[in-house]
Amino acid sequence: MSTKIKPDLPGGFRDFLPKDMIARQNILTTVKNVFERFGFDPLETSIIQKKEVVTKGEDAFKMNIFKTGIVSGDQQNNYGEDLVLRPELTIGLARLSAKEKIIKPFKVYQTGYVFRGERPQAGRFRGFTQFDADIIGSNSPLSDAEIITIIYEVMSRLVGTEFVIKISNRRILNALADLIGISSEFERQQIFRILDKQDKTGWSAVKKELTTKTGLVEKNINLIKEFLSLSSSQSSVEEVLNELKKMFASVPLGLAGVADLEAVANLLLINKLPTKNWQINLSTIRGLGYYTGTVFETFLNKLITIGSVFAGGRYDNLVNKFSTAKMSAVGASVGIDRLFVALEKLNKIKKQNTVTQVLIACLDKKFFSDYLLLAQKLRAENICTQIYLGDDLSFKAQLAYALNLNIPFILIMGEDEKKQNVVSLKNLKTREQVLIPLSKLSAYFNKIL
Amino acid sequence: MSTKIKPDLPGGFRDFLPKDMIARQNILTTVKNVFERFGFDPLETSIIQKKEVVTKGEDAFKMNIFKTGIVSGDQQNNYGEDLVLRPELTIGLARLSAKEKIIKPFKVYQTGYVFRGERPQAGRFRGFTQFDADIIGSNSPLSDAEIITIIYEVMSRLVGTEFVIKISNRRILNALADLIGISSEFERQQIFRILDKQDKTGWSAVKKELTTKTGLVEKNINLIKEFLSLSSSQSSVEEVLNELKKMFASVPLGLAGVADLEAVANLLLINKLPTKNWQINLSTIRGLGYYTGTVFETFLNKLITIGSVFAGGRYDNLVNKFSTAKMSAVGASVGIDRLFVALEKLNKIKKQNTVTQVLIACLDKKFFSDYLLLAQKLRAENICTQIYLGDDLSFKAQLAYALNLNIPFILIMGEDEKKQNVVSLKNLKTREQVLIPLSKLSAYFNKIL
Repeated sequence: MSTKIKPDLPGGFRDFLPKDMIARQNILTTVKNVFERFGFDPLETSIIQKKEVVTKGEDAFKMNIFKTGIVSGDQQNNYGEDLVLRPELTIGLARLSAKEKIIKPFKVYQTGYVFRGERPQAGRFRGFTQFDADIIGSNSPLSDAEIITIIYEVMSRLVGTEFVIKISNRRILNALADLIGISSEFERQQIFRILDKQDKTGWSAVKKELTTKTGLVEKNINLIKEFLSLSSSQSSVEEVLNELKKMFASVPLGLAGVADLEAVANLLLINKLPTKNWQINLSTIRGLGYYTGTVFETFLNKLITIGSVFAGGRYDNLVNKFSTAKMSAVGASVGIDRLFVALEKLNKIKKQNTVTQVLIACLDKKFFSDYLLLAQKLRAENICTQIYLGDDLSFKAQLAYALNLNIPFILIMGEDEKKQNVVSLKNLKTREQVLIPLSKLSAYFNKIL
Repeated sequence: MSTKIKPDLPGGFRDFLPKDMIARQNILTTVKNVFERFGFDPLETSIIQKKEVVTKGEDAFKMNIFKTGIVSGDQQNNYGEDLVLRPELTIGLARLSAKEKIIKPFKVYQTGYVFRGERPQAGRFRGFTQFDADIIGSNSPLSDAEIITIIYEVMSRLVGTEFVIKISNRRILNALADLIGISSEFERQQIFRILDKQDKTGWSAVKKELTTKTGLVEKNINLIKEFLSLSSSQSSVEEVLNELKKMFASVPLGLAGVADLEAVANLLLINKLPTKNWQINLSTIRGLGYYTGTVFETFLNKLITIGSVFAGGRYDNLVNKFSTAKMSAVGASVGIDRLFVALEKLNKIKKQNTVTQVLIACLDKKFFSDYLLLAQKLRAENICTQIYLGDDLSFKAQLAYALNLNIPFILIMGEDEKKQNVVSLKNLKTREQVLIPLSKLSAYFNKIL
């Protein structure tokens, strides 16, 4: 006997069995249907990209990535290529938008795997499914509002009402840096990174880090605190906007950002998005990244700690990394894996083991042709039908199979049924069994399924 | 201005723009629907696998594969892992079947990217989408026949009638090797590889290679020729089976293989698969691989040269590489990319640029709220609706956008329409324009779309 290979997956990667996959597919279909109703078209970008595209040529590119190359037998040969697995979907879209003749505004969605080159450790996943929607080539606040409205529509369908989309604007954040006299890009990014931690660590930890690492004076730290606490969850949208207008009265960039925010907020009000589900919230920093205007993150009210599940913003300079053409852009991304875990915890996932609706028991070889023709008939009616294919042909084994998979019906044809031109149909939930004439079988299923 | 990064994809990889993606999605949906009607459930296996799983520990593993590892900044660190990108989907299923507690028969389908570590060269793709269906844990010929029936159902929907599934059995091929006195596994594989080329190179090239490389005597080469030419396209299924029974009268393995083939053929006859669309054909070798019983390949009558588009077979020993448990298995795989190219050539692909059905023209800022409410109304009726989001708000630009995307309708609301409580709807195909009262808009679309 040959040695067995250990059937293990590498750490941080997963398979999805039907029970989870059926539920994941339902989520993906919900997201897809909302995107399509808003006129977004499907797109697919390559999983493998050139390293310089993903890092945008930045030496300081911070994200850990998976490198990839070719092995032939024991020989590694990269043919002079420097290839990586994409860590997110947006970069592939930006590359494509620079390269291809696209019709603008280019409204597209894409879904697929992204990979993060983390050290393998318990509970940390290294491959994820993301689902993005983006609008390339539109500078209109209608676009920002549309992306946020889509998030609202998707979340309403999947979660119900217990979520909130927090909205801010990157230009206002940059104006804040101006206001406190921070002009170096390096220092700005350092400060934004510290502020971004407030959700997780709370204000006092942020304050301490600002004091020790940035040398900001107390007056400015207090101004930051006041800024971060501005939120329409505490007051009205109008009041927050007025506060911001006062705060940035002397900073044109800030006022421009506030005007953007106001335009987007007004469109959301017209769209009648309940203010329970969205708020202007200036503590929304949205990491580092490439954002240039509106930014937003979505939190689950009952699972705040898992962080944002659906987020995005405006990134008007990203395509520009690859092209001299200026191309404004706005988009959002939902991590299907994190969302799935959250929906499971919230009891919003209906799990089922199989799509099969009817199992035809396979009791006697001489009726094989009857089983096959029955199956053909039901499948033609779009009823998901299995003929039992197991090697143990006892009825007990077949019933156990149907019960283990939670198949709703088992269809039986034996000597008696054959003679009478009927089938026995057992409802595995109620355990009721009825005799149905062959000629009425399709009609029967169409009524009950 | 910063240096621009070249927006190139690595050789052998592709993006799919909406025009192709909508058509690809239609194909994937067709395949998925057929699989589900036969009671196959969705499954997803990891793209990244351990190298030893993919190579099954074979030093002589022939396929070129993509290796992958982690880069942090400029540092490469594999953390002691030896990781590869899967070159096909079946190996992940076999691994999972050995590792997880699956309910057998385990009927599953999976789709996703696979990667082949070829040298980059024009026209050779290195990333593909495959779609597989498999049955794990069933030894019944019903399973083999079901997989072949599924191929028939999928191909009928996508291609029509101009295809043929060629069926053989690996045990008969092994019996042929016994009959001509080849017992070493190495020599067998060498001969099978030569025979597999017949489709491409023709018999005389195969004969020459057999003569020079294997030292087979003429009598045996003639026997091989006779064997390969056996096909029910020339005679009836029954006649081919009788020929085989005569040929292998003294070889029990051969007779067992013929009995398998007969059982499968009889089930296909019961299933009423037109014999125009399937045949027993002993020239079906199905490469090297892990096949142990029934093997089959599907060819397009009008595009024979592109080779098989949907193929598979029984592989009863693969799970056994990872487990002491014996697990029979049969499955098939369709390469979506090759099939797509073929369907395009056969004019079987209906291309459309967008899923959008209606574009709401954005003519006047003061009507923004009307546009938004109109869009909301149509989307609630599942009509895929865009509000024009471009930066050039001239009607000419908006009309050009709709025409470029082939959006069927453009909806216009200006001063006049607003006053009369109507909208103008322009059919961009017929160029007709009609006035429709707001209250009758949904009903109108439900009638025409």
